[in-house]
Amino acid sequence: MNDLEKFETLCQRTREIKYLESTSALLSWDQQTKLPSRGAAYRAEQLTFLAGEMHRRRTDPVYGELLNDLTASDLVEDPHSDVGSTILELKHRYEKNSKLPKPLVEELARTTSLAQEVWAEAREEDDFSRFAPSLKRIFELKREEADAVGYQETPYDVLLDDFEPGAKTDEVAGVLAALRKELVPLIDQVREAGFKPDISILRRHYPVDAQREFGRLASTAIGFDYERGRLDTTRHPFCSEMGPDDVRITTRYDDTFFSSSFFGTLHEAGHGIYEQGLRAEQYGLPPGSYCSLGIHESQSRLWENLVGRSHSFWGRFYPRAQEFFPAALQDVSQDDFYAAINDVRPSLIRVEADEATYNLHIIIRFELEQAVMEGQLQTDDLPDAWNEKYQEFLGIQPPSDANGLLQDIHWSAGLVGYFATYSLGNLMASQFFEAAEKELGDLDGLFAAGEFSVLKDWLNRNVHGRGARYRSRLLSETVCGNPLSHQPLMRHLRNKLSAIYGF
Amino acid sequence: MNDLEKFETLCQRTREIKYLESTSALLSWDQQTKLPSRGAAYRAEQLTFLAGEMHRRRTDPVYGELLNDLTASDLVEDPHSDVGSTILELKHRYEKNSKLPKPLVEELARTTSLAQEVWAEAREEDDFSRFAPSLKRIFELKREEADAVGYQETPYDVLLDDFEPGAKTDEVAGVLAALRKELVPLIDQVREAGFKPDISILRRHYPVDAQREFGRLASTAIGFDYERGRLDTTRHPFCSEMGPDDVRITTRYDDTFFSSSFFGTLHEAGHGIYEQGLRAEQYGLPPGSYCSLGIHESQSRLWENLVGRSHSFWGRFYPRAQEFFPAALQDVSQDDFYAAINDVRPSLIRVEADEATYNLHIIIRFELEQAVMEGQLQTDDLPDAWNEKYQEFLGIQPPSDANGLLQDIHWSAGLVGYFATYSLGNLMASQFFEAAEKELGDLDGLFAAGEFSVLKDWLNRNVHGRGARYRSRLLSETVCGNPLSHQPLMRHLRNKLSAIYGF
Repeated sequence: MNDLEKFETLCQRTREIKYLESTSALLSWDQQTKLPSRGAAYRAEQLTFLAGEMHRRRTDPVYGELLNDLTASDLVEDPHSDVGSTILELKHRYEKNSKLPKPLVEELARTTSLAQEVWAEAREEDDFSRFAPSLKRIFELKREEADAVGYQETPYDVLLDDFEPGAKTDEVAGVLAALRKELVPLIDQVREAGFKPDISILRRHYPVDAQREFGRLASTAIGFDYERGRLDTTRHPFCSEMGPDDVRITTRYDDTFFSSSFFGTLHEAGHGIYEQGLRAEQYGLPPGSYCSLGIHESQSRLWENLVGRSHSFWGRFYPRAQEFFPAALQDVSQDDFYAAINDVRPSLIRVEADEATYNLHIIIRFELEQAVMEGQLQTDDLPDAWNEKYQEFLGIQPPSDANGLLQDIHWSAGLVGYFATYSLGNLMASQFFEAAEKELGDLDGLFAAGEFSVLKDWLNRNVHGRGARYRSRLLSETVCGNPLSHQPLMRHLRNKLSAIYGF
Repeated sequence: MNDLEKFETLCQRTREIKYLESTSALLSWDQQTKLPSRGAAYRAEQLTFLAGEMHRRRTDPVYGELLNDLTASDLVEDPHSDVGSTILELKHRYEKNSKLPKPLVEELARTTSLAQEVWAEAREEDDFSRFAPSLKRIFELKREEADAVGYQETPYDVLLDDFEPGAKTDEVAGVLAALRKELVPLIDQVREAGFKPDISILRRHYPVDAQREFGRLASTAIGFDYERGRLDTTRHPFCSEMGPDDVRITTRYDDTFFSSSFFGTLHEAGHGIYEQGLRAEQYGLPPGSYCSLGIHESQSRLWENLVGRSHSFWGRFYPRAQEFFPAALQDVSQDDFYAAINDVRPSLIRVEADEATYNLHIIIRFELEQAVMEGQLQTDDLPDAWNEKYQEFLGIQPPSDANGLLQDIHWSAGLVGYFATYSLGNLMASQFFEAAEKELGDLDGLFAAGEFSVLKDWLNRNVHGRGARYRSRLLSETVCGNPLSHQPLMRHLRNKLSAIYGF
């Protein structure tokens, strides 16, 4: 085989792995949306089997030889070309995967598939002790994973790299520390301002059917394509792709709270727009895959917060909201509504937190995960440590574990090292948004006219279309012209909050 | 390896194939219930890939050697034991599968996955010409399949064996001919009787939500376990298992017709009760698998017709039906309702046909399929041939192909040779029911009291628990004590219809 034939073989094998990955994604989606209650045990067996099959293929020595040969060839001359990035990214993954023993991979798949059910029950019944053994085992397995792959600074680096390839713990810690340093005084300023938005208007009765329709309307308007996707209801909202034309988002409805499903739907639609904006002809290969979870989150946050909580967006949508929810909103002015959805105050639930305090929820999780991974904290002590951190960072404590560390599905699914990408996403969302405005001019006029495709096209071109041809830091530098920084997010928050709170 | 170790290896490999089969079942279920409209192309690729993987494993020479060795061992001494039947059934499948080239298997998977979408559109738009090329190709591939496997009498034998292992075309033709010979005069008697049930009462307004609830109530009552299954809406109703505790049934609702979803739900629940009654510890192996599609259909028909259309069943459920549908049923007596749901008259749509004429729909399809497979009829001529047969057998002609040969999904899914099992199921349902009554005594009193578990337990014990340890003819002979015959069905129909129509 010459190099091009080898490259074609590599791509074909990678697409075959993707068949299994996308099939697994459907099994998981189905588990969270449709699976009969007693079906979980066998579903775990199916997922375990597929995880083993994927691992076998990902670590196949023939696959490794192809990658070795191609890494040494001319084809990698431009590391950011379709061909070059395909070879180099797959090589990186191959090397990491090859260090993981198949039994470990299978045990992780089985344990986490079952643990998600256990977590759901423990959360439902507010009983940490039911979840504790699963949580302990999952962190043990993640530690085994880190040891098997190997690391220089901290085992946490290995896990972080799964979600944010190339990122290092100390770099992330640095940028989050800088953010926290400016964020806490800003939150203090908000607290000390005389004005308090009336957030009770968001807690009126919002019928679920109307919420569903309104969420669908808004997500369609910003560009989520329902011919290539769908929206369902789950306990924990997520976005999952299982084909180039099959991107599924979920939400949850609370008929006494407007924000949960509305902003959750915009958020997941933002993830979905990213997936739908990837190049279909490169599906399953790095140029047609998402870059990192930080970049993924930048897209969801951009649509949720920078668009969906903007004054101009509601210039367009508030009259419609009043039509959908006449009983709740007929006596509410647009300004009062706008202030309420941008209210900043410490709260217990991450996914319902405001744009500013949200990042403190993340830093708490980021620090706790590191402490467990580095052996300074036992998983059984996590509830206490969690509550102490909430007291320290946000000045409040959860009344129960259901509103504390049982609130997130992530650990039960084996997603350790994932949370940090949420704050990276927040930072990059603001950075991308500033870059877009620099190039496109003021976007508010467009939003007020219900025109979102100019921004979406810009993102398609600059972010989505590049796939994983660049690592996340390089991608944001290439698009924005400057390195990752907390400044754009802080500028955005200061501008918005000083106007609302009058400081 | 000694024989027992070989047997364990065989079972493990078979269970692995089952992971892929059950995963494919989920992909197909999802395609019919949830898949976004543009997702079909990639779904076909996924299914094709899995079909190739399954075929590779089913025809793996190592698997074949295990089977060769075990077939020659003491373990097959009792061919109906768990161990013996596992080896012999898997050997039969292996030999058949080994004769099929992988490209043919993959092309069949791809073609039929895509053709189902084409069929749905062609049916929607009542345009046979759109579906014609797919249909032609599918029959060509089925012919290739039959040629690859080889046959003595007719290529149709090969296809029939896929659904009814061991059955021969001429035997089935014989029993269907005997049935037709007695059925046609009975249908004539009904036509000539003075009485005509008022079937317009079934065409009143039946709100969909109430239909869903009532169908759920009745299917739960007869024993379908919703903790191990679910009910969804599809264009074409079906039952699919994707795990020992995950059996999914579907139905379709027409708010101007009671029977479609109600009896459809009972029918699919009957299939589901069979799947749920298989031995979970033998899941994926012949003793824990359904015996044949004829036996499968016997279970759905038994619950739909012999229970669900019985006088005693409605003694229990008619008062509930009046509560669910007060506007439609308040002025209807139970006897009038009972007569309406048992009305016999020629009609166009198989799945909505009555118990008696239903079998004529089947014989039509059975004869047309054979004619195409044996080269006496071209697929392009099927619409005309279809309409002629309906004229000959039922005295009516479809006004359009949508109500003619486009009504069934089967051919688009590559299911040729399948229809005959529906009538075999009708015959065996009556046979099983007679055997159950012989052992358990009169069941009407139990049904009238809402007690269905005695019958279900009997079926669990005598039919479900035996899985595929017996071929279908032997199973029905073992359970009933006499060979397959049209007489029990004819007795049932004569008794019921003479009482209703008064002859």
